[in-house]
Amino acid sequence: MAAAEWPGSANTLKGVILDMCGVLYDSGEGDGVAIPGSIEAVQRLKQSDLQLRFCTNETQASRDRFVAKLQRLGFDISVSEVFSPAPAAVSVLKERGLRPHLLVYDGLLPEFDGVDQTNPNCVVMGDAAEKFSYQNMNDAFRVLVGLDKPVLISLGQGRYYKETDGLKLDVGVYMKALEYACDVKAEVIGKPSPMFFQSVLSDMGLQPHEALMIGDDLVNDVGGAQGCGMKGVQVRTGKYRASDESHPTVSADGTVDDLKEAVELLLRHRRL
Amino acid sequence: MAAAEWPGSANTLKGVILDMCGVLYDSGEGDGVAIPGSIEAVQRLKQSDLQLRFCTNETQASRDRFVAKLQRLGFDISVSEVFSPAPAAVSVLKERGLRPHLLVYDGLLPEFDGVDQTNPNCVVMGDAAEKFSYQNMNDAFRVLVGLDKPVLISLGQGRYYKETDGLKLDVGVYMKALEYACDVKAEVIGKPSPMFFQSVLSDMGLQPHEALMIGDDLVNDVGGAQGCGMKGVQVRTGKYRASDESHPTVSADGTVDDLKEAVELLLRHRRL
Repeated sequence: MAAAEWPGSANTLKGVILDMCGVLYDSGEGDGVAIPGSIEAVQRLKQSDLQLRFCTNETQASRDRFVAKLQRLGFDISVSEVFSPAPAAVSVLKERGLRPHLLVYDGLLPEFDGVDQTNPNCVVMGDAAEKFSYQNMNDAFRVLVGLDKPVLISLGQGRYYKETDGLKLDVGVYMKALEYACDVKAEVIGKPSPMFFQSVLSDMGLQPHEALMIGDDLVNDVGGAQGCGMKGVQVRTGKYRASDESHPTVSADGTVDDLKEAVELLLRHRRL
Repeated sequence: MAAAEWPGSANTLKGVILDMCGVLYDSGEGDGVAIPGSIEAVQRLKQSDLQLRFCTNETQASRDRFVAKLQRLGFDISVSEVFSPAPAAVSVLKERGLRPHLLVYDGLLPEFDGVDQTNPNCVVMGDAAEKFSYQNMNDAFRVLVGLDKPVLISLGQGRYYKETDGLKLDVGVYMKALEYACDVKAEVIGKPSPMFFQSVLSDMGLQPHEALMIGDDLVNDVGGAQGCGMKGVQVRTGKYRASDESHPTVSADGTVDDLKEAVELLLRHRRL
């Protein structure tokens, strides 16, 4: 069993990276709901000698508001511990002198406050949800098609996610739409991009083999982390589907019922 | 020059197939506007010994209403001369016992009046324009993801088209979105599907080398027709772009300024 294998290497670990939606909580109306046992599991990790970071492809809210929501749900978490695509994108934009046309959810706009958005020379898209209207898609398309070298930056490439009222299309679906419309390949910032995981490792000062990723998304969380040389464990909460355990290309180092079980296994093996 | 080559074979032609939007007229508010010279060009073709058919990927209106619009613009044209994807799709649905969830423009709905739409076991999408809302895309996605074997039928695979107020995203873009969301390959009905061109040739009783396609869309009109063994000429109206003339994979048998020039060249060479 893969599940028996990963805790065996727990003693070599120095850090843990947690996905958020589907691992800590389920999103939906209002703040959503904490997944049973996850608040305590985060607490136990914080009391251990392991470093802890949170890594999310959340692009509907700024980190400030997102973290405030998690705190209201009861999680001990601060903005400096959270890595999300928008701040990473802002660094890239500034580095390359890019002025974005933004196709993002209103709640994410504050992240781009300091970025010049006049006379756009690229499009940045996030999980815009209801903002993915025909009009807004046309507007983004016209910016891209008017550029000599279209640059499309996508904050993630997820297919769909689960809210309390059902499955919803994610940014990756609309990214594919604009890729096809303009015959261009998007640059993805966020999981599973190796650059994104690497920035979290750098912040902890760790090598990939010293860190473990725990997520509900087999491809973006587990596969992405493994692609960087980290171990990746999948939880059976959030968007987990039974078919993930026989996925043709990605195989988790372990599969556990929830974050609570993952942390129990991990900390027990570190004491052995 | 390719442009010098195709009229040379004009004497072997027995039929002409015309694309409509971007060749006969530019769409936009109201009925749109006829492209200068195109009404007379259609008239001249009708007075010649060539057979004439119209072939469109138009899926915003039923053929009845679409042809009425063209007649109002001044074209001599009747429903029986027009081939469009919706009636072809209805045949396929009935043949295979498929009950569609429709993601189409309201104006197209009458084409599907006789089709059972209860308890859908496939999704049929057309150029839904403003109907491509996040909500409607989620609804179609949920139908597909709930099927054991998702069947997605797309009425065309165009990237974009031109209306009087600018470029607009076409059905192909949203087809790619749902393909990615559900990890499924759409079945395309309409240009450039060979089956679709073949149905027009059959109606005329012609072999492919006896027919010429004239369109503004290099890939779907010209490339599609060439893929069937027909000659394909592109007009520099509608969605034509200068870069089409150095396209990496499709090369038109001729490129002319507009339908008027195409018909002049064609008829002049037939008299030689």
